[in-house]
Amino acid sequence: MNPSIQFCSRCGHQVSLKIPPGETLLRHVCDQCQMVHYQNPKLIVGSIPEWKSSILLCKRAIEPRYGYWTLPAGFMENQETTSEGAIRETLEETGAQVQIESLFSLFNLAHLNQVHLFYRARVLLPVFGPTTESTEVALFQEGDIPWQDLAFVSVRETLAHFFEDRKNNRFILHQIDLDPAQETTPLSISSKAAG
Amino acid sequence: MNPSIQFCSRCGHQVSLKIPPGETLLRHVCDQCQMVHYQNPKLIVGSIPEWKSSILLCKRAIEPRYGYWTLPAGFMENQETTSEGAIRETLEETGAQVQIESLFSLFNLAHLNQVHLFYRARVLLPVFGPTTESTEVALFQEGDIPWQDLAFVSVRETLAHFFEDRKNNRFILHQIDLDPAQETTPLSISSKAAG
Repeated sequence: MNPSIQFCSRCGHQVSLKIPPGETLLRHVCDQCQMVHYQNPKLIVGSIPEWKSSILLCKRAIEPRYGYWTLPAGFMENQETTSEGAIRETLEETGAQVQIESLFSLFNLAHLNQVHLFYRARVLLPVFGPTTESTEVALFQEGDIPWQDLAFVSVRETLAHFFEDRKNNRFILHQIDLDPAQETTPLSISSKAAG
Repeated sequence: MNPSIQFCSRCGHQVSLKIPPGETLLRHVCDQCQMVHYQNPKLIVGSIPEWKSSILLCKRAIEPRYGYWTLPAGFMENQETTSEGAIRETLEETGAQVQIESLFSLFNLAHLNQVHLFYRARVLLPVFGPTTESTEVALFQEGDIPWQDLAFVSVRETLAHFFEDRKNNRFILHQIDLDPAQETTPLSISSKAAG
């Protein structure tokens, strides 16, 4: 199933694909200590950083989608909340401090075992710039968004719904299931998706 | 950090705690092949199954919280969406088929590396009963909810907000961060949380 699970992380013996007793799905089970190595979807958390009426975007300095523009987002870490993760990723990728507002979009990418969450956020001070993860960080008015050069479908959908809701002065939670057919671009947000 | 990560799942060699180049957090890194073994929060997905004005609850047949009542919920699996996971868990734990309505609550349990999502759901037919995961499955009117015997804080909070919103005829998304101090009961939804 997952080619990078060949050995037990606890005892180092080989694992085999088996359905554990009382379960229904194939799992990587250790031949020696019987530990079951569960694989679960990962959360990607990000923000829509607003400064006055502009949105802060970053140009990716890393693969995948090197050189394309994105909203700041990345893998949620242990020991943090979804909002804390969105604040941290925004700081790491743009240098900007934000205050989180409402949850705006939730994407299921079942084929990639990912769930993406984007929060509306307020940029506290217009202090930002290139980081190790972004070659360029800039504020965009709605009319200047580089729609053709956005890195991920979930970013494009989030921005499109955001401007639509802002026009209507009513922000709702957008829940969207993306499948490979809807994607014209690779969707793994970061190389940490591997494994 | 995680005592059950001692060996590389890809090559079987020992791992060490290190900060990989370009990162800021300690990770389990293979001494031999350098593979980084990321650890990320897990999603628990569940439903609030409504039949007429009653809610379907199940009495846990498994630890933790054996014998306590809960809303059907469990770990999201790879290759499914959050809604599909909630439907599957409801079927597995109650035998009932549900149709998912809106996302109702999102809990962060940063100390357990968990995010819980509960969806409002409509029971399609009043066909349900004990399962391998529940010794008892029953419909409860609001006045009969066994508040003192609920398994998890996120379940209690979800039910309390649900009945309040229903009274007000207005369902909103509830986002709650739980820390250990708020918990009077163990919170790991299933033994699968280990590892």
